[in-house]
Amino acid sequence: MKCSRCKEPAFVKIKRHNASFCESCFELFFSRQVEGAIKRYQMFGKEEKILLGASGGKDSMALWHYLQHAGYTVQAIHFDLGIGEHSSISRQIVEEFAQAHCFSLLVISVKDLLGGTIPELAKKARHRSTCSFCGLVKRYLLNRFAFEKGFTVYATGHNLDDEAATLLGNVLHWQTGYLTHQSPSLPSPHPKMLRKVKPFYTLTEEEIRIYVKLKNLPFVEDRCPLSHRAKSLDYKEVLQLLEEKSPGTKHAFLFGFLEKAKPLFPAENIVLQECQICGMPTTQTTCSFCKIMQKVRAKEENSCTS
Amino acid sequence: MKCSRCKEPAFVKIKRHNASFCESCFELFFSRQVEGAIKRYQMFGKEEKILLGASGGKDSMALWHYLQHAGYTVQAIHFDLGIGEHSSISRQIVEEFAQAHCFSLLVISVKDLLGGTIPELAKKARHRSTCSFCGLVKRYLLNRFAFEKGFTVYATGHNLDDEAATLLGNVLHWQTGYLTHQSPSLPSPHPKMLRKVKPFYTLTEEEIRIYVKLKNLPFVEDRCPLSHRAKSLDYKEVLQLLEEKSPGTKHAFLFGFLEKAKPLFPAENIVLQECQICGMPTTQTTCSFCKIMQKVRAKEENSCTS
Repeated sequence: MKCSRCKEPAFVKIKRHNASFCESCFELFFSRQVEGAIKRYQMFGKEEKILLGASGGKDSMALWHYLQHAGYTVQAIHFDLGIGEHSSISRQIVEEFAQAHCFSLLVISVKDLLGGTIPELAKKARHRSTCSFCGLVKRYLLNRFAFEKGFTVYATGHNLDDEAATLLGNVLHWQTGYLTHQSPSLPSPHPKMLRKVKPFYTLTEEEIRIYVKLKNLPFVEDRCPLSHRAKSLDYKEVLQLLEEKSPGTKHAFLFGFLEKAKPLFPAENIVLQECQICGMPTTQTTCSFCKIMQKVRAKEENSCTS
Repeated sequence: MKCSRCKEPAFVKIKRHNASFCESCFELFFSRQVEGAIKRYQMFGKEEKILLGASGGKDSMALWHYLQHAGYTVQAIHFDLGIGEHSSISRQIVEEFAQAHCFSLLVISVKDLLGGTIPELAKKARHRSTCSFCGLVKRYLLNRFAFEKGFTVYATGHNLDDEAATLLGNVLHWQTGYLTHQSPSLPSPHPKMLRKVKPFYTLTEEEIRIYVKLKNLPFVEDRCPLSHRAKSLDYKEVLQLLEEKSPGTKHAFLFGFLEKAKPLFPAENIVLQECQICGMPTTQTTCSFCKIMQKVRAKEENSCTS
């Protein structure tokens, strides 16, 4: 197998592009994909300070490594969610990685900040799903931190498989509101909220795995132990089945949506006001975060007095 | 297990409706589904003469049986495609069924009419795919026959699984033109073309299988031997995987599309004119059927002179 570009021996075949690459040409392919995505959606420039979500998974570690080495200015942020060993290992990996490379990292411990781990708080708030509770808390803390520190753009390692799976879920239920918002670059709906970008949206999980191996990057292999029932995994599974029978399926599905279908879904007219308690943007009088924290505090007071 | 309706012993459980039925209540459920579909889309009335596509498969046999017994006026039409044993068995089944029940059936033999079976003609025409060639020939012969005999509506046995699989294929490739046209009732785009309706679009393959078993209807179990590579089978397979994990997925996917998403896809402005050779509607000067038949005839003449 020869490299499609330089004809030297190839070490990897990218089926959906019908191409094989040697190590250095794979790096070039990878870099072109990311830079193309950044440019296409005007995600950020080299002068901008990018807030990067570093979960410790392979995608975020690859994005962190790539952006730093490509000369972007990155501030990584990691949430220690307190979900048992999974969280402690994830935190250790990102902390050691940052230290070894002198990368800038901020760790937000949910327990330190809110007085309980995600599972503990979700239980106290009697929230219907720990996953959606966790998402809500992370989004809130992220926006508040970013606003206080003056960040405007947040980059995550979401890849083509993630995006295609989310799209499939939204399409299977025709969640037109979510379809309107599904984009590799989501503009900020309010001055106190971040613009969200996904520079890896054109790269598959497999391609990112190759990059991670090539660069010998540490990462947490295991998924969050609470996500075992996540439907997105079912969607990934069926898309992978279709991809194997017809390479390029995921790519065509996501790119076709962005080009042809997304413009047809009308933008929702969401009016945001500032939460009466914390001042962060919300569609209600009190934001969802403050509401759940009120429930948590009420539960804590009840436990103390009873 | 008790019947959800009459509390007598049930013989079947319909997961997606969270209901169990005895035989007579299943029949009622089945009938209500079909009559609801006919009414919702104003498919046809009891005074109208319905042309029904009878392939010999379970769906068309069930539809034929249902419509006849529900008091509709049906003229069944069967295409003998000349695809080996599959075609001869299918023909025999529909002919014997029509005779046994005194149902009106017309058989169109492609070989008798065009001088060759579908595989023979497709080969002579050097068509890229026998399946698409077969579809083209059947659609043409159907519309021509219907126009000559004064039929206006054509009913087929397409079920919820078929429709959801077609939808998934169209969505995976964002074929916006096809999405505009996907409907349980497709209006006639030209006076020489049929209105097409699918009275079974709310019923799953499994539910139709139960009806067929209950009524002891004969049918061809095997798929067309040439359809082994059909992508629709892959789409059915992955939808079934998702359905098993989350009953109601197919229903929500198809119905959500029809209600929420289909209206967003703009109607295509297709101008139809009459073919200069046969007079049937086409977007070109000569219709696709006449073009392929010209190729077939040219090939036959070459074979005779060489």
